[in-house]
Amino acid sequence: MSEHNQRILLASRPDGKPAPEHFKFDSVPVGEPADGQVLLKVLFLSLDPYMRGRMNAGKSYAKPIEVGDVMEGGTVARVVRSRHPDFAEGDVVLSYSGWQSYAVADGATVRKIDASAAPVSTALGVLGMPGFTAYAGLLTIGQPQRGETVVVAAASGAVGSAVGQIAKIKGARAVGIAGGADKCAFLRDELGFDAVVDHRAPDFAAQLEAACPQGIDVYFENVGGHVWDAVFPLLNDFARVPVCGLIAQYNDTAPRPGPDRLPGVMREILSRSLLIRGFIQREFVDQRPAFEREMAAWIACGQVRYREDIVDGLEAAPQAFIGLLEGRNFGKLIVRVGE
Amino acid sequence: MSEHNQRILLASRPDGKPAPEHFKFDSVPVGEPADGQVLLKVLFLSLDPYMRGRMNAGKSYAKPIEVGDVMEGGTVARVVRSRHPDFAEGDVVLSYSGWQSYAVADGATVRKIDASAAPVSTALGVLGMPGFTAYAGLLTIGQPQRGETVVVAAASGAVGSAVGQIAKIKGARAVGIAGGADKCAFLRDELGFDAVVDHRAPDFAAQLEAACPQGIDVYFENVGGHVWDAVFPLLNDFARVPVCGLIAQYNDTAPRPGPDRLPGVMREILSRSLLIRGFIQREFVDQRPAFEREMAAWIACGQVRYREDIVDGLEAAPQAFIGLLEGRNFGKLIVRVGE
Repeated sequence: MSEHNQRILLASRPDGKPAPEHFKFDSVPVGEPADGQVLLKVLFLSLDPYMRGRMNAGKSYAKPIEVGDVMEGGTVARVVRSRHPDFAEGDVVLSYSGWQSYAVADGATVRKIDASAAPVSTALGVLGMPGFTAYAGLLTIGQPQRGETVVVAAASGAVGSAVGQIAKIKGARAVGIAGGADKCAFLRDELGFDAVVDHRAPDFAAQLEAACPQGIDVYFENVGGHVWDAVFPLLNDFARVPVCGLIAQYNDTAPRPGPDRLPGVMREILSRSLLIRGFIQREFVDQRPAFEREMAAWIACGQVRYREDIVDGLEAAPQAFIGLLEGRNFGKLIVRVGE
Repeated sequence: MSEHNQRILLASRPDGKPAPEHFKFDSVPVGEPADGQVLLKVLFLSLDPYMRGRMNAGKSYAKPIEVGDVMEGGTVARVVRSRHPDFAEGDVVLSYSGWQSYAVADGATVRKIDASAAPVSTALGVLGMPGFTAYAGLLTIGQPQRGETVVVAAASGAVGSAVGQIAKIKGARAVGIAGGADKCAFLRDELGFDAVVDHRAPDFAAQLEAACPQGIDVYFENVGGHVWDAVFPLLNDFARVPVCGLIAQYNDTAPRPGPDRLPGVMREILSRSLLIRGFIQREFVDQRPAFEREMAAWIACGQVRYREDIVDGLEAAPQAFIGLLEGRNFGKLIVRVGE
């Protein structure tokens, strides 16, 4: 095969915000699939906040990417050669092949996508890991009840937009927090959120309080930082907080100055009987079939809408990822790697 | 009736540690029960850490005691006059009549105790609110599994000693944290804890780590402060933390100096999929009959043992309560008010 595999590697570990120099481009010959493997040509690469954690050394829920390795990520790809009986040339699959234009993968690690059901890129967003994260975290941990108030941060993102819309389907009141007038208008006018608050507003905390006159029963945490600070005093007794992400603090390099807020937060957890629960979606894998069935139906009947922010070319991935951590994307961020 | 009712009132709100001047003694005529009421002579008064919170103004899970009001608390009492059809003179009842020697109570607010089943004082401890707090918090939130490690702070107290013993019954490994050699020996030798660590030891954190070679799956939080600091790094992925009390910080008057540990704790909640859940027992009231049945059986067959720390005379209550907040009691702290 004369084509080369374009790759983006982790060049060095960022100390704080990632910058272009933390990524390295290279080009290597396309690999050959062994027995039981497939050769994939990547069509779409998903960019997600969790990748920032993988760039660090140290313990988390997944092992870090090693310096010099290909950056990790979910992809939609086309099978261009198959040595696995379940896959034929031309099949479109979901894989975890990372930031590169070709990949050799074990057949057991990829899964066929029905390309007739929805645009295949949705397998990286509303019908994929981010949509499932919203579904499992909100319904299993958040457990919104009819008439309750659900607040979600990063509400125009891939996870947040699904959280708010599922909350509405369950009869709760959905309040979104997003950055900027465009995102807020989209949530209110296109997705039907009951209220939207711009976290960049100087009176953000007061606006959030006004948007939640009955307090907050479920807070789906994607952000941390000053968004948490505004939400926390509004949590009702028995409120549930699924902790899905903390994008505001992923780039922190040093402990924040005092006072130490932990004792006060623990006191409120006790006196208001709060539930705080970190999670990642793979813990709930047995709910995945129900999610796929329900979400496909909600999309088909217009109860869940989604927005994609597609950038062109693998070479654009580092800047797009840096922008994601600063909230510059608008919708699920995806890189179109191949045609 | 010629007897007087001796009472202890909240004289003023403590700013930090309570002291004798925050309590005021008085004596008033014994009240007369109206129709549907009973007159009670108090036998035993329970002293519990939660009372410190009630002495403060401000929102918590219960409204504060007003300055000038009788201090609140659970009691075991004898009916000395009844104008309620369900109660007769001589009945022994559980009531919430506070720090006084007599009380008039609505019949609907008191409950008869079977004085033949166990010493009536246990209705304030292992068979009462503290035992039920341990049972509901550990089993419903902590959900210990066979072979897991359960750590409990304030382990020789009324709640903690029940937590450790119930954990053992469920097949978990029970590790107790207590202050002082006597309490540690009691937990190990009398109650059968698998390991015990003295939080006053200079190398407390290292000792705790050594006592938990498989990490910690359930931490039943009664304390906060430096005990939390030693426990938190040892929590396993998917660990559960029922937050029942924070006695180390009840007397705090000002925020603690920095750095701010909250962002780091939130990051670990996320990366280790931790569950932190504040609670009070009355939320689980529907489990109370099961608790009473199971706990009575466990006591009868020696699987749960208990220790009471009984002080004599209502006038001793303020000093005993001040000592409770400093860990000076040894077992369930009870005041013998009347014979």
